[in-house]
Amino acid sequence: MNNDIENEEPAAPRPGISRRGLLGLLGTGAAGIAVGAGAAAAVAASTGVPTTRSYPFSGEHQAGITTPAQDRLHFAAFDMAASATRDDLRELLADWTYAAERMTRGLEVSETGAVGGPPLAPPDDTGEALDLPASGLTITVGFGPSLFDDRFGLADRRPAELEPLPRFAGDALVATASGGDLCIQACADDPQVAVHAIRNLSRIAFGRATIRWSQLGFGRTSSTSTAQATPRNLFGFKDGTANIKAEERQAVEDHVWVQADDDVPGWFVGGSYLVTRTIRMIIETWDRTRLEEQERVIGRDKGAGAPLSGGTEFSPIDFSAVGAAGQKLVDDDSHVRLAHAAQNGGVQLLRRGYNYVNGNDALGRLDAGLFFISYQRSPQQFVTVQQSLARDALNEYIKHVGSGLFAIPPGATEGRPLGAALFA
Amino acid sequence: MNNDIENEEPAAPRPGISRRGLLGLLGTGAAGIAVGAGAAAAVAASTGVPTTRSYPFSGEHQAGITTPAQDRLHFAAFDMAASATRDDLRELLADWTYAAERMTRGLEVSETGAVGGPPLAPPDDTGEALDLPASGLTITVGFGPSLFDDRFGLADRRPAELEPLPRFAGDALVATASGGDLCIQACADDPQVAVHAIRNLSRIAFGRATIRWSQLGFGRTSSTSTAQATPRNLFGFKDGTANIKAEERQAVEDHVWVQADDDVPGWFVGGSYLVTRTIRMIIETWDRTRLEEQERVIGRDKGAGAPLSGGTEFSPIDFSAVGAAGQKLVDDDSHVRLAHAAQNGGVQLLRRGYNYVNGNDALGRLDAGLFFISYQRSPQQFVTVQQSLARDALNEYIKHVGSGLFAIPPGATEGRPLGAALFA
Repeated sequence: MNNDIENEEPAAPRPGISRRGLLGLLGTGAAGIAVGAGAAAAVAASTGVPTTRSYPFSGEHQAGITTPAQDRLHFAAFDMAASATRDDLRELLADWTYAAERMTRGLEVSETGAVGGPPLAPPDDTGEALDLPASGLTITVGFGPSLFDDRFGLADRRPAELEPLPRFAGDALVATASGGDLCIQACADDPQVAVHAIRNLSRIAFGRATIRWSQLGFGRTSSTSTAQATPRNLFGFKDGTANIKAEERQAVEDHVWVQADDDVPGWFVGGSYLVTRTIRMIIETWDRTRLEEQERVIGRDKGAGAPLSGGTEFSPIDFSAVGAAGQKLVDDDSHVRLAHAAQNGGVQLLRRGYNYVNGNDALGRLDAGLFFISYQRSPQQFVTVQQSLARDALNEYIKHVGSGLFAIPPGATEGRPLGAALFA
Repeated sequence: MNNDIENEEPAAPRPGISRRGLLGLLGTGAAGIAVGAGAAAAVAASTGVPTTRSYPFSGEHQAGITTPAQDRLHFAAFDMAASATRDDLRELLADWTYAAERMTRGLEVSETGAVGGPPLAPPDDTGEALDLPASGLTITVGFGPSLFDDRFGLADRRPAELEPLPRFAGDALVATASGGDLCIQACADDPQVAVHAIRNLSRIAFGRATIRWSQLGFGRTSSTSTAQATPRNLFGFKDGTANIKAEERQAVEDHVWVQADDDVPGWFVGGSYLVTRTIRMIIETWDRTRLEEQERVIGRDKGAGAPLSGGTEFSPIDFSAVGAAGQKLVDDDSHVRLAHAAQNGGVQLLRRGYNYVNGNDALGRLDAGLFFISYQRSPQQFVTVQQSLARDALNEYIKHVGSGLFAIPPGATEGRPLGAALFA
């Protein structure tokens, strides 16, 4: 396996969505006029959300990883249809590439879009983002371990480490939040834009792939840029203070991107491993815990987010600091200690999670928590940290109910749709 | 029944949350320092959401009705606990008033808040909005028909029209999205602020009331001010073009606020009736419908939102306009015709709904739709329109799965918590 792409099957620059994709839309694909970003200014001004940001879909790496974390998420995992072939998969990825590239520019999924097509055909685009600009939309596509079974002739293309995560202490996983052949992470400043992306990509997949599970997130819980303030999770604590930031070029190279000298197939170089964990928070129990205990469990103070060893939010944590009675200031089983690179052989993750509330349960408790997302060069980074967290004092207040591992290929480039090298 | 309040039981200005409410928090209520709006600017700048708006909680009417519709919603219906007494209910409303008034100013639920209390007590505030400003938060509280049964001695205070809505053609209601003794609508520019409000008010209710059902909404589907652009629902159409706007003072008086000469108990004058309908959209079927048919069903064109009788978005609809073949341009069973005031004896509603996506179903279809909210002077207004919609062509693509009717009392005023007049 190497990174040579000369012999790949041709993935010509596509003028639009494939015939199969258009069948999914039940549209006609006839040429028309592009609409979309037109009335953007009016709506943006009215909602108060400045939505002029846009990020290129194509490039060396996929966007949505080191991109400054947007505030809203719609994530979906897909399973390929039982009837889907290798060609279906390749064409689906090309169709997604075409539509995603357009949507991240604030355009509709095709040139005819929601209203530019023939009146006797269903519109190509569903239209709910018609007046909205790009809104910083990123669309990030990944491949689950199951995609590399014997269905699509890709068994020999599977990165060796792309296999289901081991079971962790306390896992309470449900199938409806775990696994999947494919995934799409859509992040945007405007939730309607993120939802529009998932909905339309799901529609384009019709007959080829179906949503297996999905999750909306409403508040980012990590900063991925030094320009971003640290947000709070639903425990009320600042989260992601020690996260890898995009500006830390060396750390990103070392910990996020799969490198040519890693033991991976060539198509995956420049990619990353994505881990998702749906972490339900038992917030009622947490809320009844005294402040001192909350801070001990986390290892930081709740107000400023400073480590209990002293200083301010961004002060290095002194894990050896002791108090007057000789007790460790940052407890042995505190979250910040067990999750920290210094305690895990230097392992770091690029975290990109979101707060979620999925209604309430039958007891009237909010079904709320953290949709954890991390990107890393190897799943072993996550495994190391998660195994370290087995004795995390926080475990009393959380339950991991969902889990996913995906290989994120490098970015699409001119004439080369996402994942094209998979089929070389 | 009258509007005389002289003999009401005293509802003195409260220095804080009641002893019972503090028991709910398991905090101490000791005096401390107010925090909350402090680091607001940094986070607001980072998230790109300008969040400096705030709306007063107190006033003649509750906020969140004619307030320009914010972009995000968290709605919750509550049931009183089996053990709850009349005094519990009164005190709960006073506690909610105290906390809501603070939160709408960008403060925490109490003076000690998340980090200002004693370290050996659970914090009063859960803290996830600690660095966030008011974000245009409005908190709107209502009473369901069941609150006026014999549990709280309020049977003789029930407005005659506050009774469960009749069954409508095609209703497919589920208990987990319907009814409730109480409700809270929290709207804000930032979803984390709306979620924080519902979570903390639910926490304050501990032992007295529990969430029965709840719903998050991510995109407003109606404008309630002439300054707002018309947003789109998940059918991709502009929605709420013909809505009552706050600036239309006479229409608001005529159609929204309960008046002194209406046949209602005095406590309710200045209030309004709230109807919620969880309307699941069968978006996959809709998406496969040809553009012409979508526009015929709605009665407007999809791009600009102009009525099919011609003109632009805000042109009056000419229901008698006919085409070359003599056919009506705005179809007899089109949504816009059947919902329009002109076709319903002049009846109008103030709509304030939100788009929602609650994950996906087992078939991989997004569980998506419209969380319909309308305010009206009488439930009969909604009933009239909804009965007219029995032959709506749109019914093929929607399913009403949730329903609620609530009496929204007038606003709190200095020293008079929400609903105080109920107990006079």
